[in-house]
Amino acid sequence: MTAAPSPAGKPAQAAPLRPTAPLLPGLRGPADLKALPADQLPFLAQEIRDELIDVTARNGGHLGPNLGVVELSIALHRVFDTPRDKFVFDVAHQGYVHKLLTGRGGDAFRLIRKTGGLSGFLNRAESPHDSFGAGHAGTALSAALGLATARDLRGTSEHVVALCGDAAFTCGITMEALNNVAHSTKRLVVVLNDNEWSIARNVGALAKYLNELSTSATYNRIYHDIEEFFRSTPRGERLHQIWMKWKRETKDFFVESSLFEKYGLRYLGPIDGHDIPLLIKNLEFAKQADCPVVVHVLTKKGKGYEVAIEHAERFHGTSPFDIATGNGHSSPGAKPAYQDIFGQALLREARLDNRIVGITGAMPAGTGLAALAKELPRQFFDVGIAEEHAALFAAGLAAQGLKPVVAIYSTFLQRAYDQIVHDVCLQQLPVVFCLDRAGLSPNDGPTHHGLFDLSYLRNVPHAAVAQPKDEDELADLLHTALQHPLPTFIRYPRGAGPGVAPKATPAVLPLGKAELLRAGADLALWALGPWVQDALALADRLEREHGLRATVVNARWIKPLDRELLLAHARATRLIVTLEDNVVMGGFGSAVLEALSDADVRTPVERIAWPDAFIEHGNSVEILRAAHGLDPETLYQRILARLPR
Amino acid sequence: MTAAPSPAGKPAQAAPLRPTAPLLPGLRGPADLKALPADQLPFLAQEIRDELIDVTARNGGHLGPNLGVVELSIALHRVFDTPRDKFVFDVAHQGYVHKLLTGRGGDAFRLIRKTGGLSGFLNRAESPHDSFGAGHAGTALSAALGLATARDLRGTSEHVVALCGDAAFTCGITMEALNNVAHSTKRLVVVLNDNEWSIARNVGALAKYLNELSTSATYNRIYHDIEEFFRSTPRGERLHQIWMKWKRETKDFFVESSLFEKYGLRYLGPIDGHDIPLLIKNLEFAKQADCPVVVHVLTKKGKGYEVAIEHAERFHGTSPFDIATGNGHSSPGAKPAYQDIFGQALLREARLDNRIVGITGAMPAGTGLAALAKELPRQFFDVGIAEEHAALFAAGLAAQGLKPVVAIYSTFLQRAYDQIVHDVCLQQLPVVFCLDRAGLSPNDGPTHHGLFDLSYLRNVPHAAVAQPKDEDELADLLHTALQHPLPTFIRYPRGAGPGVAPKATPAVLPLGKAELLRAGADLALWALGPWVQDALALADRLEREHGLRATVVNARWIKPLDRELLLAHARATRLIVTLEDNVVMGGFGSAVLEALSDADVRTPVERIAWPDAFIEHGNSVEILRAAHGLDPETLYQRILARLPR
Repeated sequence: MTAAPSPAGKPAQAAPLRPTAPLLPGLRGPADLKALPADQLPFLAQEIRDELIDVTARNGGHLGPNLGVVELSIALHRVFDTPRDKFVFDVAHQGYVHKLLTGRGGDAFRLIRKTGGLSGFLNRAESPHDSFGAGHAGTALSAALGLATARDLRGTSEHVVALCGDAAFTCGITMEALNNVAHSTKRLVVVLNDNEWSIARNVGALAKYLNELSTSATYNRIYHDIEEFFRSTPRGERLHQIWMKWKRETKDFFVESSLFEKYGLRYLGPIDGHDIPLLIKNLEFAKQADCPVVVHVLTKKGKGYEVAIEHAERFHGTSPFDIATGNGHSSPGAKPAYQDIFGQALLREARLDNRIVGITGAMPAGTGLAALAKELPRQFFDVGIAEEHAALFAAGLAAQGLKPVVAIYSTFLQRAYDQIVHDVCLQQLPVVFCLDRAGLSPNDGPTHHGLFDLSYLRNVPHAAVAQPKDEDELADLLHTALQHPLPTFIRYPRGAGPGVAPKATPAVLPLGKAELLRAGADLALWALGPWVQDALALADRLEREHGLRATVVNARWIKPLDRELLLAHARATRLIVTLEDNVVMGGFGSAVLEALSDADVRTPVERIAWPDAFIEHGNSVEILRAAHGLDPETLYQRILARLPR
Repeated sequence: MTAAPSPAGKPAQAAPLRPTAPLLPGLRGPADLKALPADQLPFLAQEIRDELIDVTARNGGHLGPNLGVVELSIALHRVFDTPRDKFVFDVAHQGYVHKLLTGRGGDAFRLIRKTGGLSGFLNRAESPHDSFGAGHAGTALSAALGLATARDLRGTSEHVVALCGDAAFTCGITMEALNNVAHSTKRLVVVLNDNEWSIARNVGALAKYLNELSTSATYNRIYHDIEEFFRSTPRGERLHQIWMKWKRETKDFFVESSLFEKYGLRYLGPIDGHDIPLLIKNLEFAKQADCPVVVHVLTKKGKGYEVAIEHAERFHGTSPFDIATGNGHSSPGAKPAYQDIFGQALLREARLDNRIVGITGAMPAGTGLAALAKELPRQFFDVGIAEEHAALFAAGLAAQGLKPVVAIYSTFLQRAYDQIVHDVCLQQLPVVFCLDRAGLSPNDGPTHHGLFDLSYLRNVPHAAVAQPKDEDELADLLHTALQHPLPTFIRYPRGAGPGVAPKATPAVLPLGKAELLRAGADLALWALGPWVQDALALADRLEREHGLRATVVNARWIKPLDRELLLAHARATRLIVTLEDNVVMGGFGSAVLEALSDADVRTPVERIAWPDAFIEHGNSVEILRAAHGLDPETLYQRILARLPR
């Protein structure tokens, strides 16, 4: 099926002709890719890079990882046949090229991450070429093992390829899967896409190990020297084929690599991930192996776009930018994001108390911990994409009197749920968890929205759970949590807040006390985080248009809830309205229902929250709110309709 | 501090004298142990074994693991000084000997796992010698790394020792920690207690690797031959000391072992885990190392008690038994446990449909999957203690049309929370999760109670969540779930149900439909699982004593909830009572509150559930219920008091 790799780059050959028309628009699927002459592939790669840069410059997105896998994705689709063969992408933010090669180019691609456009990740609902979805790291090997085992049980013969970044091997889930590969299946191709980065610089022993592998002489010994020898020999290509066949048959093709071999996988590599013929040759070999194989491919994040190489962390996932300079479109006077407010607040605390340490799972910039890392590196830990360890390591630190602050996005904290219950809260250890991206992460979509944490944290004994209404309150809550003798979870949304700069010295906020912002006798709006602003606006309009006087409360603590104030409002008004960025099941609104029920107060409660569904991606919070009936007008009418006469 | 190891076993020496009085009662703490002559330690070991067998024969408990670590625990307390030095036990079910050696013998120990007695696991609240609690597997390395890092930051010098079973290395959390050891600290002792078992026979590539290490000639080469040589030489002991010193200084003491060394740890072993002097010698060496060290110790689960060796899985955690025969005290006509009902039901389904497969995380017996494993091994997967992989692997299988059934205890499913949300439910894959031990696991206590799953599952979109009232309904629910195109979670309690044997052919139950058991106009009791029986008894008494007519409903589905029937009852009666084995926050009762609130029905709801606390261990469900106000009398009065006049 696959064209034999042409001896591209062979010095004696004439340079291939540049295509007269662009190649990319003609690719309706992998068959079209396979029909292209091999010497046209580098031109295709360049077109793909141009498209990636052009689209992410407008939409934002995961540019760096995709620039790194252009040749790899082309080689994979030359060698394998999706959708019959299955590719499972780890994280799947490096699937843009795969999308372009599987009939999802043009307008669909140009709207990637936008309302109505393609997902920024793989998605089973989007294409039969996406055999498994993802968005969180480390899932590919385990899922691929499931696909491969299902194949073995059915007795079919398709190939299954897991595409894992090097960082995947810092995730526990990947290691659990790795331990199971050899006794689960004999046929699995694992492509280890090694760009020496997870999201920030890779950390840990495995990164060091992979680096040693990559810089060893192995690569040269196996490929370059011998290839050169054949190329310089008459009838070299034929001899080369014989040599390759012999190596395959004697299994000498594999390199000794104790780590993967301890897990029962054969190792092949490292291979230049930007050399299409070499990639094809190795993938063809791995495809025929009768054992699980790791193909170690070295790629360069940002390849082909200098600024993305220089600023690799920023271009891992970028906002829209100017192509010529790589600069973002910063508006003058733009408010800092919550992550930066948090990072500065933590740094200030850590300067004053060296027991305070910050922990991130490979996200120093995304969580705002980079400032701490830079100024107080001894008080900073990046554990890699290892949320379970981040939480449990923090528990160990706290057991010895340190004050660890674990900064993990709301959606990724799901990985540490057992550690939160069993290791932190059960043992009553004062670990502070700071959950950025609580609420929507609009362009990323359902894998990244943080809409569940109130439901899954609120039921855990000894947990305190809070959300600030603004930046200053975030600093206060952090300060408060660092003095609280039990675990505290502080959640806040992606992006900028209302712009209230933190005070010079943060205050201790009373545990479980809400903040009354406005008093009124008709109804009470209890809001969390960004919804406080909405509640104030709704209250204004209710008064203006209907003369209804609304109490507005910044609820602040989901647990412990301010029952006293809540019950007072429930007894004094006709309706309680709760507003939150969480699903409607089990969240803040349910806590309010529970409190009222326990006190046998029967004031109705209108719970404004996200529906029991996975929310799609879209351009903005406003657009997604409107799509789910959470726009100001709909909410206004809902409240009026619910208010007892 | 530690007595130099005596050359015990040296043929030329006279046999040590048997102590005239028992040694164990005199041990008030580690200092007393250190004061014992070395030649008395084997006698102490025997006393400890007798005590372990005697107490677990009466109380039940983790006998096998503790019999395996008698000498190891003695050696650890001879070499290190707790509580200054820190031991972190993985799972901590092998901590009984440590408890006996740290002043917790006598009556306290004889009540282990009983109401008012010691915990069956380590517990920070129980003793300063317990530096970290546990109950779930795989946590020791990560926690120990926290303790060690805190020490390094504080600049103190205590030793930190992580005691991990071989199975810990099948857990992702251990591998995440392992990846972080080398760059986090230079001083950590990891004792790899290798008994070649996790709970069932160990699985996976790592088990195979450890087995290879253990059976290699290394052990003999390093120790036995050379030791023998010294012993047969005049002044051998002195020469031996010089040799050991030299090896230490040249670091030649360490054995080449690529796996651990890839992670930056030095490897020492394997060492006979029942040879106290040898253990002491090696631990002394590891203690002085200036790098993280793995000490690989080979132990025999059940050592010293033949039946526990023969039936290692049963004696991992045993019920009370007869010491002479090892047989349990089975009462004639005892009802089968839910796990066995489930195992048989699944086997029946799997016989009829080869797309159905069962998956366990190292618990084939505990989950009831052993029957499937025996009869249909191709349809059975034991992935090791790897809940994340179990769930995600199942998602992969389901994506290819198989029908995976994942059997994991409620409390351990917390490990797979992100996979449930992100990989199973988001992708709408029809994986069936069967949660045994939902509710109390009385003797085990807070690390094992399954009181959170309704709260953390109910908020996940696309999840169906159910609990059967009896064994027959469990079989029906399993049958139903296998035909449901979306994920289903079925929970049921530890131990036996009411004794309703499954029908010959299971029925499909309508999704989200509750079962009306008894109708009455005054109040409605909506109960889950075992509480259905209690609800019926309460209804009887309400009628008998107060003439109150109560509706009783087997709620069955927590999600989707039978809103229609619920609202009908809420409109027709004066009070809804919910009864469930889950914490009161966010569980079934909250789902009922939400449904009523959404329909603006204001009938009061009395939620009977477990308080917002970690529940201690105790003799029985009844005792623990009574301790938390959930005994029949208290509930009866609560309902009467809440019922509106």
